[in-house]
Amino acid sequence: MLDINWRPDRNSPYRLNIQIVNFIKDKIATGEWPVGFKLPSQRTLSEIFCVNRSTVVSALEELAAEGLISGNAGGGTKVINNTWTLMSINHSHNWLPYISSGLHQTNQNIMQQINQAEFQPDIIRMGSCEPSPELIPNKMIQGVLKKLSKSMASLGYEEPKGNIHLRREVCTYLKTIGIEADPSSVLITSGVLQALQLISLGLLHTNSVVYVEKPSYLYSLRTFQSFGMQPSGIKLDEEGIEIKELVDRHRRRKGAMLFTIPTFQNPTGSVMSLERRKTLVDACDRERLPIIEDDVYRELWFDEQPPQPIKAFDNNGLVLYIGGISKNLSPGLRIGWIVGSEKVIERLADIKMQTDYGTSSLSQNVTTELFSSGLYYQHNDIMRKNVKIRRDVALEALKKYFTGIGTWNIPRGGYFIWLKLNEGISMYQLFTKALSRKILVHPGDLYEFHSDQYLRISYSYASLNEIDYGIKTLSELVAEQIF
Amino acid sequence: MLDINWRPDRNSPYRLNIQIVNFIKDKIATGEWPVGFKLPSQRTLSEIFCVNRSTVVSALEELAAEGLISGNAGGGTKVINNTWTLMSINHSHNWLPYISSGLHQTNQNIMQQINQAEFQPDIIRMGSCEPSPELIPNKMIQGVLKKLSKSMASLGYEEPKGNIHLRREVCTYLKTIGIEADPSSVLITSGVLQALQLISLGLLHTNSVVYVEKPSYLYSLRTFQSFGMQPSGIKLDEEGIEIKELVDRHRRRKGAMLFTIPTFQNPTGSVMSLERRKTLVDACDRERLPIIEDDVYRELWFDEQPPQPIKAFDNNGLVLYIGGISKNLSPGLRIGWIVGSEKVIERLADIKMQTDYGTSSLSQNVTTELFSSGLYYQHNDIMRKNVKIRRDVALEALKKYFTGIGTWNIPRGGYFIWLKLNEGISMYQLFTKALSRKILVHPGDLYEFHSDQYLRISYSYASLNEIDYGIKTLSELVAEQIF
Ligand SMILES: Cc1ncc(COP(=O)(O)O)c(C=O)c1O
Ligand SMILES: Cc1ncc(COP(=O)(O)O)c(C=O)c1O
Repeated sequence: MLDINWRPDRNSPYRLNIQIVNFIKDKIATGEWPVGFKLPSQRTLSEIFCVNRSTVVSALEELAAEGLISGNAGGGTKVINNTWTLMSINHSHNWLPYISSGLHQTNQNIMQQINQAEFQPDIIRMGSCEPSPELIPNKMIQGVLKKLSKSMASLGYEEPKGNIHLRREVCTYLKTIGIEADPSSVLITSGVLQALQLISLGLLHTNSVVYVEKPSYLYSLRTFQSFGMQPSGIKLDEEGIEIKELVDRHRRRKGAMLFTIPTFQNPTGSVMSLERRKTLVDACDRERLPIIEDDVYRELWFDEQPPQPIKAFDNNGLVLYIGGISKNLSPGLRIGWIVGSEKVIERLADIKMQTDYGTSSLSQNVTTELFSSGLYYQHNDIMRKNVKIRRDVALEALKKYFTGIGTWNIPRGGYFIWLKLNEGISMYQLFTKALSRKILVHPGDLYEFHSDQYLRISYSYASLNEIDYGIKTLSELVAEQIF
Repeated sequence: MLDINWRPDRNSPYRLNIQIVNFIKDKIATGEWPVGFKLPSQRTLSEIFCVNRSTVVSALEELAAEGLISGNAGGGTKVINNTWTLMSINHSHNWLPYISSGLHQTNQNIMQQINQAEFQPDIIRMGSCEPSPELIPNKMIQGVLKKLSKSMASLGYEEPKGNIHLRREVCTYLKTIGIEADPSSVLITSGVLQALQLISLGLLHTNSVVYVEKPSYLYSLRTFQSFGMQPSGIKLDEEGIEIKELVDRHRRRKGAMLFTIPTFQNPTGSVMSLERRKTLVDACDRERLPIIEDDVYRELWFDEQPPQPIKAFDNNGLVLYIGGISKNLSPGLRIGWIVGSEKVIERLADIKMQTDYGTSSLSQNVTTELFSSGLYYQHNDIMRKNVKIRRDVALEALKKYFTGIGTWNIPRGGYFIWLKLNEGISMYQLFTKALSRKILVHPGDLYEFHSDQYLRISYSYASLNEIDYGIKTLSELVAEQIF
């Protein structure tokens, strides 16, 4: 049976049949449903999508009219062409056929709206995972620029794995959190997102199943998915991902990897316990399931350091560890790293060379200097204090405005509170209403299919006043929808 | 019929059957030959690959043994699994199955050897398309850093299309070369290579045919190809790409785009005439064939400015114009741009956000300052003079050592001389012999399949003495192979 986890969203501004058309185009365009692929029957599709059969029929007619599937209702409907081949060129220089290949699902529309809204000057950003400009140590970076303006190597292409001085500094840093690594097993990337992209390009394939926490940041990464992975969500309990469920699922589905954010998870803010980390790495070792550990929020702890990374307990090179400076220092430098066994790193470095010939050497030089001068470590202390103040304001506001409407966790670090509403509502409606009141918030269904009861509240960007005002307004909008 | 342009290389250190195994694995891994795909008969394959039938049989047996194709010789051989699904995990945490998915053709091996050799300190780099460190205006960049160290906006994530100030400066620059563009139709990228990657991800699909000059830089870009394009080479005459051949081919093959480097082409160094540029854009307009114009070498002219870009004659938004600063200023800043119609730019910006969340804002700030201060323009004048000196030394050396062995063009700008040997030789052998004498040179077959008579001589990196010594040594090695 097909494993389709998607249904049209009845609150979307798009008609159901159009959503289905776009969904199927997406499958075809990404090659998941290749030419020759036999579609499920109309009845099955209407069950999967929870819509009337007539809605399915109208969607299939549209796809047949566009020449993507065979119109033959008798012998089973098949994919007969893929969008690009078909639309390619003949009626083109307005580019529309190239662009509108239908890779648009509701989530993507929301993501695009978010990307655009984030640059409206008067918007209150409660959805961002970006540090506010005041949190970024601008003076400190300027000091480094001044130093580099006196002496700096010339800015040519860098080695495939990245600047060797930076890799050494990263290894020194990694040691402080329990990871022993050699510079030859480190790859510098243009941020953590690129690290994920390289892994997906280099080590995964179309249809690779990747286990993720449910909910997970990874669900919001469309490109990652269209490149070649099917996320398969595993429940979280108090201590982290549920290992029994993971192992059972893996024995059935033979997934390619586990993706986890054990520390100050995006979106839930939760932390995997030390015990669970150790058990997890052992279980994955037994099952021979590699782990991607995204640890980008690690340095943002409030009262006590989080447990050591999973990577610290990895004796067999099972874990690809990813870190970076976007959250605790500056996203604009675009610096991240992957640590893994050397052969894997070499493969990823090779792909990186073919992708963008390496990360800005200027950014690499600045980051090297930040590490080697010790400024990086000093700054983290300041950062932690400042982010904690923001968290406290957010918690205060939640208590004032959301008591009786929802419940939430108390994050011990990172940027996020995962707000659970007492009742499910239309997330799309809430999102657009909030946007019309100049508040940008991430509905939970960006991180988990069908979720209609969660909001991710981020306290990293908005000012303290805005955090209070934003949470107040959200509570009003939610109340409107519930009562 | 299958359009296979590839044959095993008899001079490669790999046995022919292994090369064929790898070639087919590549097809399967990239999804070009999906599960269910029927392979050509053994006889057809042996004709296509120009090998004995027994070689084909042994390759197919290997693939069947690995479980990738059905062993059934009777009813036709089919793809039954793809490497990743198959190899995924079960015997994994040594990662080998993830890494060694067989995406290795000879060219790639050479490319990897090149990438590694480039960082050996004592190597003479006659293959590089990188400016030598002396050519990079380090002092000038340091001056900019000093200025920025006094005032700079904080380094957060940038807008999807890139820093607006930089986009404005790019538009001002574009005006000087005849292109009128609005900042909304410009996307800042991490170098030109990433621009190509975004286009390939966003506007092309597996199996898209892309017309390229024969020879072309694009042939050396493996990832671009495995993402979704089949290059289809069109001959060059004195004036540039042959339009009649292009149009005829296009009517048969319905390609997706034309990729051209009209100005100081890589690898030939040639320049498309003004007349041809105009005719080309008209012809492509009639045929509704979009053009990618890679103009990264434009500013490196010696005696007179090259003709205006093709984009300058594009009234209908047919041309995606790509430029950058890697060749004339600094590759390490990783700054490039794409100019096109706004809808296309928006789509590409969206993909860029999903790929790496934008280009280093520090690099963008520095580049903005270089433009706005006028330093960019001043530096280009100096650069042109210095590169010309290098060209002259290379031409001198060719005259001394290659007269009677080969012929060559006199480049009017850019980095390359396309050296034609009077006789074909094994390029792989020449490459490895040269490498053992510490000389890195790019054999012509990186840029054109089966080419065994060309070498690309680059004069951008090696010192003047090295250029002379390198060309001398190459002439000796070539002579050894010919005589
Ligand atoms: C878990 C997680 N990983 C990675 C990223 C992206 O980090 P970067 O800006 O370094 O690409 C984010 C934030 O957007 C994130 O929340
Ligand atoms: C024609 C051409 N385009 C693009 C590039 C890559 O440029 P960048 O370093 O800006 O990615 C090169 C050089 O490697 C080139 O020769």
